Amino acid sequence: MSAAEKTFKLIVEYDGTDFFGWQVQPGTRTVQGVLESALEHISGSKIGVVSAGRTDTGVHAIGMAAHIKLETNLKPPNIMNALNSYLPEDVTVHSVSVENDNFHARFSATGRWYRYRMILRKTSLLRNRVWQVKYKLDIKAMKTAAKALIGKFDARGLCAVNPEVTDYLTNVTRCELHYMEEPDKELILDIEAIRFFTRMVRIITGTMVDVGRGYRDPDVIKEIITKGDRSLAGPAAPACGLYLMEVKYN
Amino acid sequence: MSAAEKTFKLIVEYDGTDFFGWQVQPGTRTVQGVLESALEHISGSKIGVVSAGRTDTGVHAIGMAAHIKLETNLKPPNIMNALNSYLPEDVTVHSVSVENDNFHARFSATGRWYRYRMILRKTSLLRNRVWQVKYKLDIKAMKTAAKALIGKFDARGLCAVNPEVTDYLTNVTRCELHYMEEPDKELILDIEAIRFFTRMVRIITGTMVDVGRGYRDPDVIKEIITKGDRSLAGPAAPACGLYLMEVKYN
Repeated sequence: MSAAEKTFKLIVEYDGTDFFGWQVQPGTRTVQGVLESALEHISGSKIGVVSAGRTDTGVHAIGMAAHIKLETNLKPPNIMNALNSYLPEDVTVHSVSVENDNFHARFSATGRWYRYRMILRKTSLLRNRVWQVKYKLDIKAMKTAAKALIGKFDARGLCAVNPEVTDYLTNVTRCELHYMEEPDKELILDIEAIRFFTRMVRIITGTMVDVGRGYRDPDVIKEIITKGDRSLAGPAAPACGLYLMEVKYN
Repeated sequence: MSAAEKTFKLIVEYDGTDFFGWQVQPGTRTVQGVLESALEHISGSKIGVVSAGRTDTGVHAIGMAAHIKLETNLKPPNIMNALNSYLPEDVTVHSVSVENDNFHARFSATGRWYRYRMILRKTSLLRNRVWQVKYKLDIKAMKTAAKALIGKFDARGLCAVNPEVTDYLTNVTRCELHYMEEPDKELILDIEAIRFFTRMVRIITGTMVDVGRGYRDPDVIKEIITKGDRSLAGPAAPACGLYLMEVKYN
């Protein structure tokens, strides 16, 4: 007797350092690719993994969400253990749960939380985990700039152009900078929004670091949003400091 | 005019993952080896680096201390920057300071602080940085065991045999376990002593995890110390969870 098809949600952690991002691309090592390969081992067939979003090369995830459709009688914890036994050590499935059949990792999501980690010193143990910022930063000015990001706005000036995107409206519900003193000297940006666009958190971070260096005025964020002009924003911060922390669902 | 020889103290961070430990060994990559090679670049001659101690393959350091004797007119911050420019990214010199000529990184040290990091879950981002412990642990029993380590005692039952060592007396001044709840699920052992012997922190950690699993009684530490019997202790915990945090000087 064949098992009925069920929808499962997966929560996935990965170290993005050795991946060409999330999405399957022929000839490259991707997180989706290694997950689908592990699924094929346990199910015997090709199963697509649908994620809440894509992450770029080098970007990490603590809590990426994804869903799969699977005909199985296996219990969720057993699916999780089976997946982890086939996955490489830079990807870990932290939970598997049964969802309604209309659950969709991307379309059902109501929010995403990203974290960007900077360290204002050199570090060997956290390389590939943080951006090692060499500049003196005015953190107060950066906090002022961060406040301008809260609310609904058109984000086209704060992301890379993506031909698939027709509107750039988003709603940022949280944007907080937290500094940990010596010996850590770590600066964390937590940002939560309903939608993020290509390289948006990295461009926001790069712009805020330019504000911290005194290269740009804290008001520049408002100006970028009003004018929708990417050329007013700073360069994208390095991928290695970025973490997808959590995808929210109702 | 040649510069006078001065004694400099270095504070060094390293990711031990890709090193065969601290000490120079022909044909292997060691921390001392890459430091001496960087020093040769800036001084033009072979300079020995004397450390406060050795660390094994895979063990990390946040604050290893070492000294060098160098004829130079360079200021300490310039020596630091020059060293960092020649060092690989898994070694960072965090400070260089001038010391009295009788300063000796090993013999002048009055204490060492080691940290052992365990995570009671799977992790990709912290692999090679923590021991991923798969067992349920009774942390209260482990804390009881930790208390038995405070004070002066003969540590021969809690370390590997080293033919160079004639007495195994030490004085543990601090031994604390700290647990961080979900989502971290991280268990940290901080231990400070005047002297440590070969694999001592890893054997103590392995024994304490055995206590946490219920394999050994919390009183076993006292028994090991009294009898000096290594066979009563647990296996050495993996190297990747161990950090030399700080070497203390008066």
